[in-house]
Amino acid sequence: MKYVVGVDVGGTYTKIGIVNEQGEIIKKNKINTLHKNGYDAWIDDIICTVKEMVSLEKIQALGIGAPNANYFKQIIDNAPNLPYKGTLTLKADIESSINKPVKMDNDANLAAYGEWKFGLAKDKNNFAVITLGTGLGSGIVVQGEMLYGFNGAAGELGHSIIEKEGRHCKCGRKGCLETYVSATGIVHTALEKGLNIKTAEDLYSLALNNNSIAIQCFEETGNYLGLALANLAAILSPQIIVLSGGLASSGNFILQPTISSFQKNLLFTLKNTCEIKLSNLNENESAIKGAAALAFTLV
Amino acid sequence: MKYVVGVDVGGTYTKIGIVNEQGEIIKKNKINTLHKNGYDAWIDDIICTVKEMVSLEKIQALGIGAPNANYFKQIIDNAPNLPYKGTLTLKADIESSINKPVKMDNDANLAAYGEWKFGLAKDKNNFAVITLGTGLGSGIVVQGEMLYGFNGAAGELGHSIIEKEGRHCKCGRKGCLETYVSATGIVHTALEKGLNIKTAEDLYSLALNNNSIAIQCFEETGNYLGLALANLAAILSPQIIVLSGGLASSGNFILQPTISSFQKNLLFTLKNTCEIKLSNLNENESAIKGAAALAFTLV
Repeated sequence: MKYVVGVDVGGTYTKIGIVNEQGEIIKKNKINTLHKNGYDAWIDDIICTVKEMVSLEKIQALGIGAPNANYFKQIIDNAPNLPYKGTLTLKADIESSINKPVKMDNDANLAAYGEWKFGLAKDKNNFAVITLGTGLGSGIVVQGEMLYGFNGAAGELGHSIIEKEGRHCKCGRKGCLETYVSATGIVHTALEKGLNIKTAEDLYSLALNNNSIAIQCFEETGNYLGLALANLAAILSPQIIVLSGGLASSGNFILQPTISSFQKNLLFTLKNTCEIKLSNLNENESAIKGAAALAFTLV
Repeated sequence: MKYVVGVDVGGTYTKIGIVNEQGEIIKKNKINTLHKNGYDAWIDDIICTVKEMVSLEKIQALGIGAPNANYFKQIIDNAPNLPYKGTLTLKADIESSINKPVKMDNDANLAAYGEWKFGLAKDKNNFAVITLGTGLGSGIVVQGEMLYGFNGAAGELGHSIIEKEGRHCKCGRKGCLETYVSATGIVHTALEKGLNIKTAEDLYSLALNNNSIAIQCFEETGNYLGLALANLAAILSPQIIVLSGGLASSGNFILQPTISSFQKNLLFTLKNTCEIKLSNLNENESAIKGAAALAFTLV
């Protein structure tokens, strides 16, 4: 049996899973990302945890998902959400300790690797995965290859400008897609409409209770997303677009208006060539599975 | 010396050139696309013309640029601008007659092949070529491969919607980029501003004479294009974007506002990673050179 390790580095926890080729997580564990003795001690902690979970000779490779991971350089550079500053050579440090191939990528690309190996994009060569969380990330596969582009920063669909002079984005510009289409964006929309909510989950609860304004918030969000995906399709001609992440768990509230807007705005030459679906990977496990899928590309 | 044949199929003329590896057109000729004896006679005419120009054993391959060419199927399907209707198996018909490798693609992709082999994108692996003619076409290369996508219709940047409920597009939708950014689009803009012109060349003449409204038309067009290219760059991370086609011959009138708008709208992680330049290939020769560049991929 082939096993790999998937590591999901978050600001608070580092989650570690042992995964087989069917995408089953055989064992999982988590440690604090912040170690009182610093970065090197955290790396040791990751490796000790892996060794406690599985005998190293059973492991073929290790994949890491991390915020701000640079795939080309295989480093993390000044990730604002991590407790360690400066340049982190995570891949090299782990690789030298366990003597197995290691690769690192950012969360959105790992979501795409996960769908490619274990999810709805299995056997697809042209697809996109849109992660709808605090922001909007996208992992894009074209002609059988993950899209990195010239500087490794391709796939920033969340920062395509969809509304000129629109909402302020944390990137410093205005009108980026993710200021409308993300958990943060939809809450913003709801507050503008006078709803008294704090989170996208609150809004989902209201929608489940048939609150028409809440439902309208999902519709407007889906309208933006469908238009953006129709524009993406005109450029890339994907076969499937998979929606994942927290906001995607709102199910048909977000999916149906997205599909309607996508179909309405889609170029006629692309009709019936591309479908939009919600990920069927368990949201709590998808980050580890994505990291594991990346590891399997090394095997 | 290696030679290939580049064939540029237009609605009126079919242009044929013999091209060497340096991109020099050694000989060129043109015939009418409409042959009184029909499609087969036109194909014979193309082959006879090639044979008159060069001894076939000196030729290594033949590339064809044609409207509505489907790269995957290597056919032309119901091209509205060609005198022959239905499905044209141009590639197979020419290949069987001259017994050399033949490949066909659409104009925008050939412009990209041309820049890749002979122009500003030489040795680049991630770039886009934007053809600004009657419409707006785009040929996109990612990670060293021409982008075709799932159904072969990738690269339709001209049909990304840049203005919701904007100008009517011939594709049946509203607000497509090419309704603003193309020779047709800029003439539309000029007429809206009350200028009495017929063509983009007329507008260029006015701009050369310091007509401030004409200059403003170029600025507004460049603003749209720069925004669309910044959005494209967020998705693809190209190293260079080359502008070609008739409208690009307006030089700095179109280039400068495009660059300003691009820089203003570009995501910070992409700053200084991508430049926008005007093609330096002769516009009258670029179609043949593009077809020749495609032929060289077969050698």
